[in-house]
Amino acid sequence: MLVNRFFERVRQIFPCIYKPPFPHKMEVTAQNFKAVLPMVEKAIDEAQFVAIDGEFTGLNLVKPVSALDLPLERYDALRESSRQFLLVQFGLCTFHYDSKKDLYTNRAFNFYVWPRPYTRNAPDLRFMCQTSSIDFLVKQDFDFNKLFKHGISYLKPEAEEKMKKAIEDRQITRKSNDTPNAQHIPIPEAMETYINEIKTKIQTFIQGNSNTLFLEKSNAFQRRLIYQVAREEFTGIFLESVAVGRDRVIKITKMDANEHAQKDLDRNQSEFDVLDEAVGFAKVIQKLSQSRKPVVGHNMFLDLCYTLNQFVCTLPESYSEFKHLANKTFPILVDTKTMATQYPFRDEIFNSSLEELKNTLMTAPFHMPDVKAVSVDSGYELESEKYHEAGYDAFITGLCFIAMSNHLGTLSKELGPKPRLMPDSPLLKPFFNKIHLMRIADIPYMNLAGEDISPNRDHVFHVTFPSEWKTSDLVNLFSAFGNVQVSWLNESSAYVSLYDPTSAKEVLSALNCSSVYNIMTYGQFKSFEASASLTGITPTLAQSKLSFSDSVSELKELTKKRSISPDPEPYKRSKSVTDDDTPVQTSKNFAESSDW
Amino acid sequence: MLVNRFFERVRQIFPCIYKPPFPHKMEVTAQNFKAVLPMVEKAIDEAQFVAIDGEFTGLNLVKPVSALDLPLERYDALRESSRQFLLVQFGLCTFHYDSKKDLYTNRAFNFYVWPRPYTRNAPDLRFMCQTSSIDFLVKQDFDFNKLFKHGISYLKPEAEEKMKKAIEDRQITRKSNDTPNAQHIPIPEAMETYINEIKTKIQTFIQGNSNTLFLEKSNAFQRRLIYQVAREEFTGIFLESVAVGRDRVIKITKMDANEHAQKDLDRNQSEFDVLDEAVGFAKVIQKLSQSRKPVVGHNMFLDLCYTLNQFVCTLPESYSEFKHLANKTFPILVDTKTMATQYPFRDEIFNSSLEELKNTLMTAPFHMPDVKAVSVDSGYELESEKYHEAGYDAFITGLCFIAMSNHLGTLSKELGPKPRLMPDSPLLKPFFNKIHLMRIADIPYMNLAGEDISPNRDHVFHVTFPSEWKTSDLVNLFSAFGNVQVSWLNESSAYVSLYDPTSAKEVLSALNCSSVYNIMTYGQFKSFEASASLTGITPTLAQSKLSFSDSVSELKELTKKRSISPDPEPYKRSKSVTDDDTPVQTSKNFAESSDW
Repeated sequence: MLVNRFFERVRQIFPCIYKPPFPHKMEVTAQNFKAVLPMVEKAIDEAQFVAIDGEFTGLNLVKPVSALDLPLERYDALRESSRQFLLVQFGLCTFHYDSKKDLYTNRAFNFYVWPRPYTRNAPDLRFMCQTSSIDFLVKQDFDFNKLFKHGISYLKPEAEEKMKKAIEDRQITRKSNDTPNAQHIPIPEAMETYINEIKTKIQTFIQGNSNTLFLEKSNAFQRRLIYQVAREEFTGIFLESVAVGRDRVIKITKMDANEHAQKDLDRNQSEFDVLDEAVGFAKVIQKLSQSRKPVVGHNMFLDLCYTLNQFVCTLPESYSEFKHLANKTFPILVDTKTMATQYPFRDEIFNSSLEELKNTLMTAPFHMPDVKAVSVDSGYELESEKYHEAGYDAFITGLCFIAMSNHLGTLSKELGPKPRLMPDSPLLKPFFNKIHLMRIADIPYMNLAGEDISPNRDHVFHVTFPSEWKTSDLVNLFSAFGNVQVSWLNESSAYVSLYDPTSAKEVLSALNCSSVYNIMTYGQFKSFEASASLTGITPTLAQSKLSFSDSVSELKELTKKRSISPDPEPYKRSKSVTDDDTPVQTSKNFAESSDW
Repeated sequence: MLVNRFFERVRQIFPCIYKPPFPHKMEVTAQNFKAVLPMVEKAIDEAQFVAIDGEFTGLNLVKPVSALDLPLERYDALRESSRQFLLVQFGLCTFHYDSKKDLYTNRAFNFYVWPRPYTRNAPDLRFMCQTSSIDFLVKQDFDFNKLFKHGISYLKPEAEEKMKKAIEDRQITRKSNDTPNAQHIPIPEAMETYINEIKTKIQTFIQGNSNTLFLEKSNAFQRRLIYQVAREEFTGIFLESVAVGRDRVIKITKMDANEHAQKDLDRNQSEFDVLDEAVGFAKVIQKLSQSRKPVVGHNMFLDLCYTLNQFVCTLPESYSEFKHLANKTFPILVDTKTMATQYPFRDEIFNSSLEELKNTLMTAPFHMPDVKAVSVDSGYELESEKYHEAGYDAFITGLCFIAMSNHLGTLSKELGPKPRLMPDSPLLKPFFNKIHLMRIADIPYMNLAGEDISPNRDHVFHVTFPSEWKTSDLVNLFSAFGNVQVSWLNESSAYVSLYDPTSAKEVLSALNCSSVYNIMTYGQFKSFEASASLTGITPTLAQSKLSFSDSVSELKELTKKRSISPDPEPYKRSKSVTDDDTPVQTSKNFAESSDW
């Protein structure tokens, strides 16, 4: 909205004197995180449910995904993505129900999160970006300078434990080095003059009136020798290594034994304080997990995987362990895209992208609740219109969840004329922990709390063929069996599904007699693949997993081949894991995708 | 400089009315690239030499580098880095000599370069970032929003050729699809109503007064059917697919056959124009290469590798092919760090980091030339003080080159009292194409135009040992042979070099009788490694090449192990390929590195 943008601009120019006319989410960076955290925790504690949304530096590595992927295969692909890309903005919107007024209010927070090197010893993380994702974010006015300058640190519990242990070890070592019988390092001949000069300086300083002495810049080895000299030959002084501009120097302070001991304690404490700050945003996720509140997302598979991997625990290799981890961390997950695409909603909702879903839910037979912001500084209202700001998308997701919940209440005859279905209603249970899987026709969701759907794929065939083949060659091959759908795996293999499954049994006998191509049933191929992975033989499917460095050219070849010219969007298919199936762009749907 | 920063700020707020008081480099983005390119080409044409500098999203993958690396090994590591990280800012400073005034002037440009997806079909590149590099850049006020929003595209010649071919093919296909006998796609039953409605709309439009019709948003398949209907059933109209906001729609215009043909030509041309724009920054590098001018950099191995890989040609596997590529692209490369660390300069210059080198060259016996900016909008002067802005670092590099060249002139008795050594002087030839190698004591540079130095390493031993061993265990093992230097390869192998080589021959017989550890001479190990790589056996050295995903934890373990506590900078060693050996931070030297 233009008027909103105008006020935004005014706000940027005069941040002190200006209050926004529309409710505004709270932006959280390293600068205000400490102050805001208690408010976030309170908001979670007081919420009926919490909606979330993430923004990422990338969505998918180059692995093509197939409409016949199994949930396990989608997990494998996404696990790899979430280990390489970063979640950089986390939107959190808490929804609070006032039973007296029968009204919801909301609080919203946008966290900028960034693996800041919190100490000079912190790991120097390498991570991946996807050009289209960066381009999408920048077009939504995502502020990368703010992210890199002021993003909030984070540490997984496991890393926090390790760091804590390292600090404790260091403090013990320091203490033992500080005793008179600490190991003595012989002073190399070349350093003798240098060390003697330092000794003279310290001697002069101790006899003088000044209370502090800064030595000249030195390297790590020199500093170790200086510490040793101070320990062995002087008393009543305290040494510490401090940064002066770009240099590392030793600062010496006169100090008696008591002050010295206190200073040691302070330093030890400050090391733990730094660690506490480094844990940063992970505390929000810990709080959210401990609250056991329902966590709602829209098309939330990426959000879930990235959040777990970055703030909870490196995603496990095993798919069943992943389900266990997700369940343990967030016992109630609700994906509004799963709701919108399942009974009873699928008959009324034709476009389940977030913006279109919201539009549909604003018209009969649905009813969109009026959810106010708790205050102008914390929370959104519908007219805020900040799509693709993580907090606003989370807010809209929460609205959709309430509208669909209430609609379920309307359908249930046991509730009154103004049904208000709370998130813990048994009517909602069928939707719990079912995470939408994009573009898998016969497995619409992943079931985190139980077995996945195992559809009949007797009408699907795996074909390998010369790499010159195009879709039309496969269509021709199967022409006796009517219309088919081709799902490419790599340049020389694909799944071919019959639209009419009745003649499936005749396919092998009719076609399986060629030296040019090879056909198996879907079931045969899956068994072959499983045994190949046990014996270490690379099955055909694995060839589709292109390496990073070859990605661009190979992907280009592959997608060129798949598209029947003059298809104007040959790149679409490679993106299908992340594109939505609707024309509206959401965070996970930056490429125009109505075509798929 | 504070005053400079104040003016910078004023300039940001009032860009139109403000002229900087100090000479200012020209900032080049996609917004002004087309206009600036002729000025850049002219500047290169008129230059005596060109200085360059790059800024990168990352410097090194996690491979530890060793002080005993061979040039080939350094190249292998950097080749991998340059394929994964991006060069995002290219500084170019041209130096112009006026022989009448005996004065140099300079022009400087800072190019923001970014692999913008230039069309919807462009490859969607994935690339790596290193947290510390991003942190370094952001602390230097590098504007990432500007980079991502307005960075200049680029395409390597090879990619340009491919794209050109693809456009030509597409245009041929389009032409053949536009003929009456083009392949007919049957209209699916489900689409019949839709297509009939479209037909009615087009019919009404043709009979009406309006000249243009926008159809509603449609997907790619719908659009193909609409094009087909238009071709088969209507004449006098022209269809094109255009973007309206987030949607893709078909625009129909009334048009006779001549206009139609012209429109086709225009569209074809505009596709080549888009390609031309996509080639973008690569044109600057092509121009630089074609000019055959000397290209000067400081510690330029990274700059060279990233520049070649990103704008010229994917770096070859073979080290000799790389040398050939570098030579062919830039026939005269001068690394001012190589100059500063070689005879005769090494005896006068003790710190060869860019800033310290400049300071040294400002004092006797050196003389820093006064190089003015060509104009206030294009070029730097010494007082600009914008370290780590790529263009300024390139400018300072050029100054250092002139100062060192002139000093060579002073030393040569054949020149007059005010020697001015031009870049093509034979006195400079010994420095051509010698690229500095950081922290390899006995191979200070890589020789791009010939054989590399092959030093005697008879005093070096390769040792494998239990992973519990620390540096002190190795020092103890060799204690009979005096002082040693330990260069770790991984947690259970290292090179150990004797400071005193005279007893090298006795080492094996004295120590090679243990089941706990294993010792070979350097020569033996290199032969073993070569034969192992031929037979496919993984030698010990290769174990040091950690994979990306394991990087953080393994690196942490590794570096923890190597540091003798309480070493306050355990991470230093892993960065040694990129740290400078001096305390001043340069682009390639963001970690405090005085310790090395």
